[in-house]
Amino acid sequence: MVPKNRNNVPTPVDFTLISKALVIISGKWRLTIILLIGEDTFRFRQFREQLPSMSEKMLAGELKALVALDVLTRTVYAEVPPRVEYSLTKKGRLALPILRQLQQVGHLFN
Amino acid sequence: MVPKNRNNVPTPVDFTLISKALVIISGKWRLTIILLIGEDTFRFRQFREQLPSMSEKMLAGELKALVALDVLTRTVYAEVPPRVEYSLTKKGRLALPILRQLQQVGHLFN
Repeated sequence: MVPKNRNNVPTPVDFTLISKALVIISGKWRLTIILLIGEDTFRFRQFREQLPSMSEKMLAGELKALVALDVLTRTVYAEVPPRVEYSLTKKGRLALPILRQLQQVGHLFN
Repeated sequence: MVPKNRNNVPTPVDFTLISKALVIISGKWRLTIILLIGEDTFRFRQFREQLPSMSEKMLAGELKALVALDVLTRTVYAEVPPRVEYSLTKKGRLALPILRQLQQVGHLFN
Protein backbone atom coordinates (compact mmCIF):
# COMPACT_ATOMS: atom_id res chain seq x y z
CA MET A 1 0.00 0.00 0.00
CA VAL A 2 1.71 3.21 -1.15
CA PRO A 3 1.41 5.92 1.51
CA LYS A 4 -0.45 9.02 0.36
CA ASN A 5 -0.04 12.61 1.50
CA ARG A 6 -2.80 15.00 2.58
CA ASN A 7 -3.80 15.67 -1.04
CA ASN A 8 -4.09 11.92 -1.52
CA VAL A 9 -1.15 11.97 -3.93
CA PRO A 10 1.03 8.86 -3.51
CA THR A 11 4.41 9.85 -2.08
CA PRO A 12 6.61 6.92 -3.08
CA VAL A 13 9.12 5.80 -0.50
CA ASP A 14 12.41 5.34 -2.32
CA PHE A 15 14.65 3.04 -0.31
CA THR A 16 17.71 3.93 -2.39
CA LEU A 17 17.29 7.64 -1.80
CA ILE A 18 16.69 7.04 1.91
CA SER A 19 19.87 5.03 2.27
CA LYS A 20 21.85 7.63 0.25
CA ALA A 21 20.58 10.37 2.59
CA LEU A 22 21.34 8.32 5.68
CA VAL A 23 24.97 7.78 4.59
CA ILE A 24 25.42 11.56 4.47
CA ILE A 25 24.08 12.09 7.97
CA SER A 26 24.91 8.75 9.58
CA GLY A 27 27.06 8.41 12.62
CA LYS A 28 27.35 10.74 15.58
CA TRP A 29 29.19 13.58 13.88
CA ARG A 30 28.46 14.00 10.16
CA LEU A 31 25.28 16.04 10.51
CA THR A 32 26.95 18.17 13.19
CA ILE A 33 29.95 18.84 10.93
CA ILE A 34 27.68 19.81 8.02
CA LEU A 35 25.54 22.16 10.13
CA LEU A 36 28.59 23.63 11.84
CA ILE A 37 30.36 24.59 8.64
CA GLY A 38 27.18 25.75 6.91
CA GLU A 39 28.03 28.40 4.31
CA ASP A 40 31.43 29.04 5.93
CA THR A 41 34.93 27.78 5.22
CA PHE A 42 36.62 25.91 8.05
CA ARG A 43 40.15 24.83 8.80
CA PHE A 44 40.76 21.62 10.72
CA ARG A 45 41.64 23.65 13.84
CA GLN A 46 38.25 25.39 13.78
CA PHE A 47 36.41 22.07 13.79
CA ARG A 48 38.61 20.93 16.69
CA GLU A 49 37.80 24.11 18.63
CA GLN A 50 34.06 23.73 18.14
CA LEU A 51 33.98 19.94 18.63
CA PRO A 52 36.23 19.43 21.66
CA SER A 53 34.70 16.06 22.51
CA MET A 54 35.50 14.66 19.08
CA SER A 55 38.88 12.95 18.71
CA GLU A 56 41.32 14.24 16.12
CA LYS A 57 41.37 10.83 14.45
CA MET A 58 37.55 10.67 14.29
CA LEU A 59 37.37 14.20 12.88
CA ALA A 60 39.99 13.44 10.21
CA GLY A 61 38.10 10.25 9.28
CA GLU A 62 34.69 11.93 9.05
CA LEU A 63 36.04 14.88 7.04
CA LYS A 64 37.69 12.40 4.65
CA ALA A 65 34.40 10.49 4.32
CA LEU A 66 32.40 13.68 3.67
CA VAL A 67 34.90 14.73 0.98
CA ALA A 68 34.63 11.29 -0.61
CA LEU A 69 30.82 11.59 -0.52
CA ASP A 70 31.09 14.96 -2.33
CA VAL A 71 29.53 16.80 0.61
CA LEU A 72 32.69 18.74 1.48
CA THR A 73 35.57 20.09 -0.61
CA ARG A 74 39.11 20.09 0.77
CA THR A 75 41.37 22.80 -0.64
CA VAL A 76 45.13 22.77 0.02
CA TYR A 77 47.05 26.03 -0.44
CA ALA A 78 50.75 25.59 -1.29
CA GLU A 79 52.02 27.69 1.58
CA VAL A 80 54.54 26.81 4.26
CA PRO A 81 53.06 25.14 6.20
CA PRO A 82 50.32 24.20 3.69
CA ARG A 83 46.93 25.73 4.49
CA VAL A 84 43.95 23.33 4.26
CA GLU A 85 40.39 24.57 4.08
CA TYR A 86 37.04 22.78 3.98
CA SER A 87 33.70 24.02 2.67
CA LEU A 88 30.45 22.48 1.52
CA THR A 89 30.19 21.49 -2.14
CA LYS A 90 27.34 22.85 -4.25
CA LYS A 91 25.36 19.67 -3.42
CA GLY A 92 26.18 20.13 0.26
CA ARG A 93 24.83 23.68 0.20
CA LEU A 94 21.68 22.53 -1.58
CA ALA A 95 21.13 19.93 1.15
CA LEU A 96 21.82 22.38 3.97
CA PRO A 97 18.33 23.92 4.39
CA ILE A 98 16.76 20.43 4.67
CA LEU A 99 19.44 19.20 7.07
CA ARG A 100 19.06 22.30 9.20
CA GLN A 101 15.39 21.48 9.62
CA LEU A 102 16.35 18.21 11.27
CA GLN A 103 17.02 20.27 14.39
CA GLN A 104 13.29 21.01 14.43
CA VAL A 105 12.68 17.26 14.46
CA GLY A 106 15.03 17.06 17.43
CA HIS A 107 13.07 19.86 19.07
CA LEU A 108 9.79 17.97 18.59
CA PHE A 109 11.19 14.98 20.47
CA ASN A 110 13.26 16.92 23.01
CA MET B 1 32.63 30.88 15.18
CA VAL B 2 28.84 30.60 14.95
CA PRO B 3 27.76 29.74 11.38
CA LYS B 4 25.51 32.36 9.77
CA ASN B 5 22.83 31.87 7.13
CA ARG B 6 22.43 33.86 3.92
CA ASN B 7 20.86 36.80 5.79
CA ASN B 8 23.87 36.77 8.08
CA VAL B 9 21.68 35.69 10.98
CA PRO B 10 23.52 33.24 13.25
CA THR B 11 21.89 29.79 12.97
CA PRO B 12 23.00 28.12 16.17
CA VAL B 13 23.96 24.48 15.88
CA ASP B 14 22.29 22.69 18.76
CA PHE B 15 24.10 19.44 19.46
CA THR B 16 21.33 18.15 21.70
CA LEU B 17 18.65 18.68 19.07
CA ILE B 18 20.86 17.08 16.43
CA SER B 19 21.42 13.97 18.52
CA LYS B 20 17.67 13.79 19.37
CA ALA B 21 16.84 13.94 15.65
CA LEU B 22 19.46 11.34 14.80
CA VAL B 23 18.02 8.88 17.34
CA ILE B 24 14.67 9.08 15.55
CA ILE B 25 16.16 8.34 12.13
CA SER B 26 19.23 6.32 13.12
CA GLY B 27 19.88 2.83 11.90
CA LYS B 28 19.01 1.30 8.58
CA TRP B 29 15.25 1.10 9.01
CA ARG B 30 13.71 3.79 11.23
CA LEU B 31 13.43 6.49 8.58
CA THR B 32 12.06 3.94 6.12
CA ILE B 33 9.42 2.77 8.62
CA ILE B 34 8.36 6.37 9.30
CA LEU B 35 8.12 7.31 5.62
CA LEU B 36 6.37 4.05 4.77
CA ILE B 37 3.60 4.49 7.30
CA GLY B 38 3.22 8.21 6.67
CA GLU B 39 -0.33 9.30 7.48
CA ASP B 40 -1.59 5.69 7.30
CA THR B 41 -2.21 3.01 9.90
CA PHE B 42 -0.23 -0.19 9.50
CA ARG B 43 -0.43 -3.65 10.95
CA PHE B 44 2.73 -5.65 11.54
CA ARG B 45 1.97 -7.81 8.50
CA GLN B 46 1.85 -4.74 6.22
CA PHE B 47 5.33 -3.68 7.31
CA ARG B 48 6.54 -7.22 6.68
CA GLU B 49 5.03 -7.22 3.17
CA GLN B 50 6.63 -3.91 2.26
CA LEU B 51 9.99 -4.61 3.95
CA PRO B 52 10.70 -8.21 2.89
CA SER B 53 14.46 -7.86 3.49
CA MET B 54 13.91 -6.83 7.11
CA SER B 55 13.84 -9.65 9.68
CA GLU B 56 10.76 -10.06 11.85
CA LYS B 57 12.90 -9.65 14.96
CA MET B 58 14.50 -6.43 13.63
CA LEU B 59 11.08 -5.03 12.68
CA ALA B 60 9.60 -5.83 16.09
CA GLY B 61 12.60 -4.19 17.77
CA GLU B 62 12.48 -1.03 15.66
CA LEU B 63 8.71 -0.64 16.06
CA LYS B 64 9.16 -1.03 19.82
CA ALA B 65 11.91 1.60 19.80
CA LEU B 66 9.82 4.04 17.73
CA VAL B 67 6.88 3.60 20.14
CA ALA B 68 9.21 4.23 23.09
CA LEU B 69 10.50 7.36 21.33
CA ASP B 70 6.88 8.58 20.93
CA VAL B 71 7.16 8.50 17.13
CA LEU B 72 4.64 5.68 16.72
CA THR B 73 1.56 4.63 18.65
CA ARG B 74 0.71 0.96 19.05
CA THR B 75 -3.02 0.23 19.51
CA VAL B 76 -4.23 -3.24 20.53
CA TYR B 77 -7.86 -4.11 19.85
CA ALA B 78 -9.32 -6.75 22.17
CA GLU B 79 -10.38 -9.10 19.43
CA VAL B 80 -9.62 -12.79 18.96
CA PRO B 81 -6.89 -12.85 17.86
CA PRO B 82 -5.99 -9.34 19.11
CA ARG B 83 -5.60 -6.79 16.34
CA VAL B 84 -2.52 -4.51 16.64
CA GLU B 85 -2.19 -1.29 14.68
CA TYR B 86 0.58 1.28 14.38
CA SER B 87 0.36 4.91 13.34
CA LEU B 88 2.47 8.03 13.74
CA THR B 89 1.94 10.10 16.86
CA LYS B 90 1.12 13.78 16.53
CA LYS B 91 4.86 14.54 16.88
CA GLY B 92 5.62 11.92 14.25
CA ARG B 93 3.20 13.53 11.82
CA LEU B 94 4.69 16.96 12.50
CA ALA B 95 8.16 15.58 11.70
CA LEU B 96 6.97 13.79 8.54
CA PRO B 97 7.26 16.65 6.00
CA ILE B 98 10.88 17.32 7.08
CA LEU B 99 11.79 13.62 7.06
CA ARG B 100 10.22 13.19 3.63
CA GLN B 101 12.53 15.89 2.32
CA LEU B 102 15.52 13.74 3.26
CA GLN B 103 14.78 11.76 0.12
CA GLN B 104 15.67 14.92 -1.81
CA VAL B 105 19.03 14.91 -0.01
CA GLY B 106 19.45 11.31 -1.16
CA HIS B 107 18.57 12.40 -4.68
CA LEU B 108 21.25 15.12 -4.60
CA PHE B 109 23.90 12.54 -3.79
CA ASN B 110 22.49 9.70 -5.87
